[in-house]
Amino acid sequence: MDEFELVDRYFRPLGSVAAGIVLGIGDDCAILDAPSDEQLVVTTDTHVESVHFPAGADAREIAYRSCVTSLSDVAAMGASARWASLAMTLPRAADSWLEAFARGVAEALQQCGAVLIGGDTTAGPLVITWHIIGTVAAGAALRRGGAQVGDLVYVSGTLGDAAGALELGLIDGGSYNKFQQELRARYWSPQPPFELARKLCGVATSCIDISDGLIADLAHIAESSDCGAEVEFSKIPIAPALLQLAGLERARRLAATGGDDYELCFTIPPSCESALLGLAGDAGLSVTQIGRMTSGAGVRVIADSGATVDLGQVGYRHFE
Amino acid sequence: MDEFELVDRYFRPLGSVAAGIVLGIGDDCAILDAPSDEQLVVTTDTHVESVHFPAGADAREIAYRSCVTSLSDVAAMGASARWASLAMTLPRAADSWLEAFARGVAEALQQCGAVLIGGDTTAGPLVITWHIIGTVAAGAALRRGGAQVGDLVYVSGTLGDAAGALELGLIDGGSYNKFQQELRARYWSPQPPFELARKLCGVATSCIDISDGLIADLAHIAESSDCGAEVEFSKIPIAPALLQLAGLERARRLAATGGDDYELCFTIPPSCESALLGLAGDAGLSVTQIGRMTSGAGVRVIADSGATVDLGQVGYRHFE
Repeated sequence: MDEFELVDRYFRPLGSVAAGIVLGIGDDCAILDAPSDEQLVVTTDTHVESVHFPAGADAREIAYRSCVTSLSDVAAMGASARWASLAMTLPRAADSWLEAFARGVAEALQQCGAVLIGGDTTAGPLVITWHIIGTVAAGAALRRGGAQVGDLVYVSGTLGDAAGALELGLIDGGSYNKFQQELRARYWSPQPPFELARKLCGVATSCIDISDGLIADLAHIAESSDCGAEVEFSKIPIAPALLQLAGLERARRLAATGGDDYELCFTIPPSCESALLGLAGDAGLSVTQIGRMTSGAGVRVIADSGATVDLGQVGYRHFE
Repeated sequence: MDEFELVDRYFRPLGSVAAGIVLGIGDDCAILDAPSDEQLVVTTDTHVESVHFPAGADAREIAYRSCVTSLSDVAAMGASARWASLAMTLPRAADSWLEAFARGVAEALQQCGAVLIGGDTTAGPLVITWHIIGTVAAGAALRRGGAQVGDLVYVSGTLGDAAGALELGLIDGGSYNKFQQELRARYWSPQPPFELARKLCGVATSCIDISDGLIADLAHIAESSDCGAEVEFSKIPIAPALLQLAGLERARRLAATGGDDYELCFTIPPSCESALLGLAGDAGLSVTQIGRMTSGAGVRVIADSGATVDLGQVGYRHFE
């Protein structure tokens, strides 16, 4: 099987006919109709074996996680992820691996109705790069830099679960109990709140998907918005599984600093709080207010005692 | 230097303010205004160390070649390459390497006025993926599949030079004579005919950039167009440097089968020939008619004697 057969067999079936696709997989380039009253939202996301996921991990899980977390970047801007390109460098073309990988891609794209439009398949060390194009009403995209002093800081879902799975050694295959399986699934099968994200346009003043960790990502919002933020440590939402397996203190640290859950962190003016709770209820999702934007700079995490919590360096940085 | 400093220092300066860019490098995603009367042309192209370029090659040359050849894919559809995203996985963040790499990127983008809008920088084995978005008037994009029986087959420039440089061992650094330097430059510094490509819309019936090799790429046109093609072996244009260094027989084989020059192969109806020659003259470029599209299937290469030339398997395939 050479690269052309590989694309025909496993990836062309994912490039279904969909609105806006004039020419899909197979030519040098795809051709797309861009809706005239919308803007394009574009992101690039690379996943490297042994850096972003363990060597020898399951192909379906690598595919799903790498794709859905890239789609999450587009969703966090309030945009609809539409078109995905896959650059896949892999050591060998094994049918069973590719079949499982393609299944994971299909599951991820289905989460938000995106379609594969092309890519490049090359031989080499396992590196997966996704490039996603989304669309959003002109001027409506949610950015990091729109928060105002006094805005409320909200997060979706529960945090720290995926980081907990990683720290507790639950991301390999193995025999796990119910709580352990829950954490493991949060790492390999994140479910970004796509529907909620789209509805936040016009309500939220800033938004980011939590990939570096809550405090690091909120710091991106604060810096881009020229303000600071305060987070009440005890308000950060923690799932029962994490609490049970890691204990309260460790769970709180994981929730504040762990990335990889791909929940949203966003800010709203206090006047929009009831509208937000209505939207979240419609989407069947929990959202939790954890703090507020302040004057000054940086993110301060506050214990119930009023003392500042020191979490050390937060956020993963390559090349450090 | 961590990944954020690296982006700030070397890549943010390449993301200049340009038409259509609402939000460039720095957020989770870029935001772009798509012109309403145009279509988007999108391509993805990966370059792996030791597969697509030799280990230890010059960073500026890796950058220029990987970027300009990706831009070439968009140009070959008659589109203007506008927005480039760079996914760069690299073993370490060395200032001198990154400075040279960024210089190569700038030189390539400048060739056709494209702008860097974002990307992802990760630690790992050296793998470069470019994702390019271009724009083209709605319906005007040149595809592989538009050739008709009787159309003339043309190529731009001379062919086989880059493949000659590779085969003759001229792509490393070293002390070379004038002809050797010329071939080496054709490998590392291809100059795709961007201006000519844009002007071919409305004249050419199909077009492809020659990256797999003339015969392999013309076979893509023939297959997509449901016809065959005949090429006169002696008409394939060969540069004096290649002729001098490789001899006639080897030069012809390289020109017919070698990729990496990033010249164009395209078809035109005979009625458009004088229009084409006018366009090429305006752009100061040579174009050469090398054959014509036929009924049947596949590409037949014909010697002056009328016999069929057997070139063996043509075109590079990963995983074979």
